[in-house]
Amino acid sequence: MARQTSAAQHITMSGGGAYSLATKGAGDVITLAADLVLNAVEAMKLPPELPVFQMLDMGCADGGTSLGMIGKVIERVEKTCPDAVFNIIYTDQPRNDFNALVQMIHGLGPFESYLERFQNVRPLFSASSFYLPICPPNSVNLGFSATAMHWLRQKPCDLENHVHMVGATGDALVKFAEQGKRDWERILLNRSKELVSGGRLVLVNFGRDEEGRYLGNTFGVNMFDTFNEIWNEFLENGRISREEYVRMTLPQYYNTVEEFSAPLTDPASPVYQSGLRLVDVHTRIVPCPFAEEFKTHGNVKRFANAYIPTIRSWNQSIFLGALDESCPLEERQELIESYYGTYHQRVLDAPEGHGMDYVHAYLIVEKI
Amino acid sequence: MARQTSAAQHITMSGGGAYSLATKGAGDVITLAADLVLNAVEAMKLPPELPVFQMLDMGCADGGTSLGMIGKVIERVEKTCPDAVFNIIYTDQPRNDFNALVQMIHGLGPFESYLERFQNVRPLFSASSFYLPICPPNSVNLGFSATAMHWLRQKPCDLENHVHMVGATGDALVKFAEQGKRDWERILLNRSKELVSGGRLVLVNFGRDEEGRYLGNTFGVNMFDTFNEIWNEFLENGRISREEYVRMTLPQYYNTVEEFSAPLTDPASPVYQSGLRLVDVHTRIVPCPFAEEFKTHGNVKRFANAYIPTIRSWNQSIFLGALDESCPLEERQELIESYYGTYHQRVLDAPEGHGMDYVHAYLIVEKI
Repeated sequence: MARQTSAAQHITMSGGGAYSLATKGAGDVITLAADLVLNAVEAMKLPPELPVFQMLDMGCADGGTSLGMIGKVIERVEKTCPDAVFNIIYTDQPRNDFNALVQMIHGLGPFESYLERFQNVRPLFSASSFYLPICPPNSVNLGFSATAMHWLRQKPCDLENHVHMVGATGDALVKFAEQGKRDWERILLNRSKELVSGGRLVLVNFGRDEEGRYLGNTFGVNMFDTFNEIWNEFLENGRISREEYVRMTLPQYYNTVEEFSAPLTDPASPVYQSGLRLVDVHTRIVPCPFAEEFKTHGNVKRFANAYIPTIRSWNQSIFLGALDESCPLEERQELIESYYGTYHQRVLDAPEGHGMDYVHAYLIVEKI
Repeated sequence: MARQTSAAQHITMSGGGAYSLATKGAGDVITLAADLVLNAVEAMKLPPELPVFQMLDMGCADGGTSLGMIGKVIERVEKTCPDAVFNIIYTDQPRNDFNALVQMIHGLGPFESYLERFQNVRPLFSASSFYLPICPPNSVNLGFSATAMHWLRQKPCDLENHVHMVGATGDALVKFAEQGKRDWERILLNRSKELVSGGRLVLVNFGRDEEGRYLGNTFGVNMFDTFNEIWNEFLENGRISREEYVRMTLPQYYNTVEEFSAPLTDPASPVYQSGLRLVDVHTRIVPCPFAEEFKTHGNVKRFANAYIPTIRSWNQSIFLGALDESCPLEERQELIESYYGTYHQRVLDAPEGHGMDYVHAYLIVEKI
């Protein structure tokens, strides 16, 4: 959820390696995507004498969630290209916790790093957003991103009646859709320049599926509506101002499969004209790991104690940032505690249907 | 002083951008080396159609001290190679403060970044030490390092009677010299593989000059002897144990000009055989900026208040690390405060001759 290269400077994921520990679900998504990535590598038909294999992991947060998948990619490429040197370029926005990322990759974090198994790997870290060029033209073999590209460069407007575009209507929805289109094309155009011919992107992005499902809304309790209901309660009880309510608009857009596909299949699109082609797209739901565990253990407290931190890890900084800075920081922090406390209580009171199922579109893209 | 890729994991420079602010002298050294770097670029005779210019800044700490010099390099190369994309790879050890570094380079720190002036620059960050490969073979045009390569991979032994090899004698000195030789060759061999033919290194390294001068010992008060005298006082007063006294051995070696030159001029050396050649070497002293200012303002307190932080910024973590961990951290920190307090009082009592003049060897190396 929180793998991101954002938009707003002050949006940050949990740091210090806590992100990977708190977002087990985001890690599951990447683990399950590993086969797609390995198939993409297979399809490249790399020459045995390949000197350098360059890979991007865009919006990597602390890097913990993709360690296993990247290890598999290196292992696979080494089999075909025994002399290849690997540039693995991790990217995230400049306010990301790069200390946690660097230590994770260099084996000083909570997980084992693939660096212990391979000699020819050169990890590199970039703070250039995926909305910008990250490396030289014609240099990237494989681009990967998971659960990151829903973060817009900026929100096109604040929403009057909801915290997320999934609840937007009318003009506001149109504005978000336009921003989403521009930003998606910009990401693809930048990657198109960087990919070598035959290079591939595997992009695992939050989206809205054919049934209208999206993150935290798989026809149980709608997570985003719950965020909004509680935020609205805080407004009605005078705990936040109208301005603060409205300012809490997530700078995100969830594309549909059609929106994701359009620039890659429409011959009139500059993305298509740059040489990018859609190889495959499909949607998939990865169940909320905490709701799944709850089905087994049935302990409501345990469920709430595991579930609330996973949603906090990616949106706490945004709720906090919506509050007026004229209020002392300590009071703002107390209010945010109370906000998640209310959500926590709702889960305790009626746990059924809560959960953050992951709804992703899986895109395979080739540079011809 | 503290630009480093170290040896011991727990040696760290001051973080949060404080390093560049505290070590004005280290910044002066790089500013003064800028002409050497620009001459090295000139001598490369880069082709106008060069697609990528890749530069390493090794042991960059928070990146603040080299911002200006790197901006000049980009400006110079762009004139000759208007289409070049710049990979500027900053390297330091995994426990460096990469958050401060990333924010410094991306213009969120205390200084203006060259990123605001140039479009085609792709900063990359590496936590691979300069004792390891950092990037693929045959890919680097320019390697730079300042005030970093005196940090050994490990200390070969503890010193019984001093804190630094400049005070070592006999077997201990031999062991340090051997470690220094191995480590210097290892750095050069790794860089030799990465440099393109015609590529250059500009290495500004602490050393011992023809007159026997070295950092903080330009025939005024000897800084390292002062460190040792006070540490020894602490031993004699029972404030530290003999083990703690001995453990405080800096993992550093200061090469002479001959030692720096040998592997680059001896046809039997594997470094020479790999294609590295010495273009130029000379030593230079950059006066301690705080001692220089003191000559003008004459205010002893002001001098001591400026001078002590500059020495603390690079060795505080090492003194702290020498103390026995069975003692509570708070007490250890108090002892270290008291240690620098004693040094501070010495400066107040007799300021004349104190200062940390920088004695560097400036090496220009070419890959044939």
